[in-house]
Parts: sequence; structure tokens; C-alpha cells
Amino acid sequence: MTIKLYCFGESGNSYKAALPLELAGFDWEPVFVDFFNGEARTPDYRAINPMGEAPVFIDGDLKMTQSGVIQQWIIEQTGKFGGKTPEEEREVLRWQFWDNHKGSSQFGMTRFLMNFLPEKHRNADVIAFNVGRVKGALNVLESELTQRDWLVGSDVTMADLSCCSYLYYPEPFGFDRDDYPAISRWLDRIADLPGWKHPYDLMPGSPADRA
Amino acid sequence: MTIKLYCFGESGNSYKAALPLELAGFDWEPVFVDFFNGEARTPDYRAINPMGEAPVFIDGDLKMTQSGVIQQWIIEQTGKFGGKTPEEEREVLRWQFWDNHKGSSQFGMTRFLMNFLPEKHRNADVIAFNVGRVKGALNVLESELTQRDWLVGSDVTMADLSCCSYLYYPEPFGFDRDDYPAISRWLDRIADLPGWKHPYDLMPGSPADRA
Repeated sequence: MTIKLYCFGESGNSYKAALPLELAGFDWEPVFVDFFNGEARTPDYRAINPMGEAPVFIDGDLKMTQSGVIQQWIIEQTGKFGGKTPEEEREVLRWQFWDNHKGSSQFGMTRFLMNFLPEKHRNADVIAFNVGRVKGALNVLESELTQRDWLVGSDVTMADLSCCSYLYYPEPFGFDRDDYPAISRWLDRIADLPGWKHPYDLMPGSPADRA
Repeated sequence: MTIKLYCFGESGNSYKAALPLELAGFDWEPVFVDFFNGEARTPDYRAINPMGEAPVFIDGDLKMTQSGVIQQWIIEQTGKFGGKTPEEEREVLRWQFWDNHKGSSQFGMTRFLMNFLPEKHRNADVIAFNVGRVKGALNVLESELTQRDWLVGSDVTMADLSCCSYLYYPEPFGFDRDDYPAISRWLDRIADLPGWKHPYDLMPGSPADRA
């Protein structure tokens, strides 16, 4: 049976699930969530996910939310992207938590505030605060990636596929690849993986649709 | 050998590790990190954790950071707090990710901004933005806990021990127990567990020390 992933192109959290599904060769299809027209708040969508989140993963009776959980399930099912030793497994999980706590959580929120929130609701102080947190997280990644090609071990893992999730988007949120050369090379390394696609190519929906 | 947990009382992230270590009966001791006097930025502490985070867990050669990873290790070692079925295990992990993404990450940041950041650096708009996110997360918890006693299954799990971590603190951050009766009853339920201690009693360091 084909796995369904409720998702939309602008959602880096959805990309964290969609990208490893694609790279690992799963039979899956995206189901478009029209987030920007409020679909995530409709009763129909709340029946799928009471919290109104994306992504939602459905495979028969198995339903999962939170991209980190979906990523761990992919590791269990395939043995891919999880690290090669117990130490690496813990390091992968550590980066997934770090990313949800301090990384893409900030990237996604700041991108939303600077690009998708109606202009009349944007607040310069709030944006500056969030950009500060973005740069703090980027500095951590840059420092790590100056020392190694991948965040954990000698190959791509979910640590990379989680932390990269908002960093291919063109909309501004305080991240300019020219300022972070090690991150930029790492993003190229991920984009060179067989089957890689940009989030706007892998999932339906992009700002171009609403232009 | 006694487990060492580098931590400090004000850190709910440290409490997420310290509380289950205590409840599960581990032989452990806290090592005070003098965060508010900058110890986390010293070379000595960076040698322990290059990211300057707390908590850091050390058991002989095993060193771990990120409370979610330490919590998963405790589950593996003891079989406690992890849920009783594969579905419950995934639900526990989901709440741990949710908490790091949207729950205690917001509670902790907002409490910092409103109480520990020097007053001259506090910004009303930034605080209001963060309090809004706090209330969004609290509403999710209140809604869930209106329907059940524990976040996952029929007993306490790491889902509870993660999400509760900042909710016992007295400092204001937009959370008044009177406004969230289901959360308040759940916090009492956790506090009734044998061995439970308040974060300021379980770990060294509290605002009282600096008064």
C-alpha cells in the first residue's frame, strides 16, 4: 500500500519526513495540505491530526506525527540513516532533538514571520530576536561542519536530514549561504545524494502558486 | 560508579534528566553548573560540552547531552517510563519531540526573558510574542489532559516527565495554574510520585542563592 504523507512544500518539517522517504525508496505519495488557506484548522484535518500539524504519515493503520518520530520509524524499517554504532545512534537522536529545540524550529518560525505572516502583523523587534536565535543555531552547525563532512559518522544520517530541512528555501530568514561556507558545502553534499529533490519539487505547494 | 549530571536548579532541561534519574532510583549526583556566572562559556565547561549546554550526563566513558537522549537511555536501561506497546513508545517519543519543539522550549525561553535577562535588555513585544507561543502550547496540553490522566497510556512516562519540566517553577512566564485546571491536576499527580522533588530541591542553584 502506498504511504500517504500529508504535507506542503513550504513546510520544512514535512520535508524532514518526505526527503528520507524519497531517498530510502519508499512507495509514498504526498497529500497536499492547503495550510495557507487554513486547511490545517478545518474539522476534516483535525480528524486526521487533532493538533493541526503537518506532516502526518499514514500507512494503513499506522498514523504518525512529529517528523522526528517518522524519521526514527524509517531508520527502524530500513536500517538507513541511523548511524552505525550505538554511539552514532545516540548522536543522531541528539541532533534530531537539537534541531527540533534550537535549529529548524527557529529557522521555520523566522521564515514564517519574515515572509508568510501578513506584513501588518510583522514586528521588527520580534523578527530581530528570532534572527538572533537563527544565527546562534547556524553558528553551531557551521562550527561542526567545519570539522567534518556529516554531522554524525562518515555518512549521511537523519541528523543531516533533520537539520538541513529549512536551509534550501529561497525566502530570507537570516541565512545567507555565502556567510556559512561549511554549511553551504554540506547542503551541496546532501543535494548530490541520488534521488534528492528540493522541497518545492518534492511536495506540492509553494509561494509561486500564490503569486 | 555514581552517575554525574552537570546541571543547575533553574534549568528545566536539566530537570528532564534529573527527575527520571531520581524516580528510577539511579545512583547519581548533581554537579553544579554556575550558568548565571558564565560557567557554561568557560573553556573548562566547553571541554565537557562544546555547545555549552546543560544537562551533561557522564557515566564512566558514556557522555550524553540533550535531555531527550538521556531520557531514552533511562528507558532502555530500566524499562521504565517508555510506554507499554510499540504504539505507546512512539507516542512517548512524539511528546518528547513536541515538548522540545513547542513546549518547554517556549516555557524556558519565555521564563528566561521575563525573569533572568537583565531588565534593560527586556523587550515587551518579544515577551508578548513568546507568551503567545507559551499559551498555544499550554492549550494543547490542557486539551489532552482534560481527556486523560497521563499523556500516554495509563501511567506516567517520559512524555509527562518532559512536558512538566518548566511547570513547577514559581517565576512568571505566562502560566498560571488556576487557568489550566487539567494541567494543574496532572502536575499534582506527578508530584505525588514516590521520590518526586521540586527542581530547586533536586538540583543545586536557585534564584534564592542570588537574592
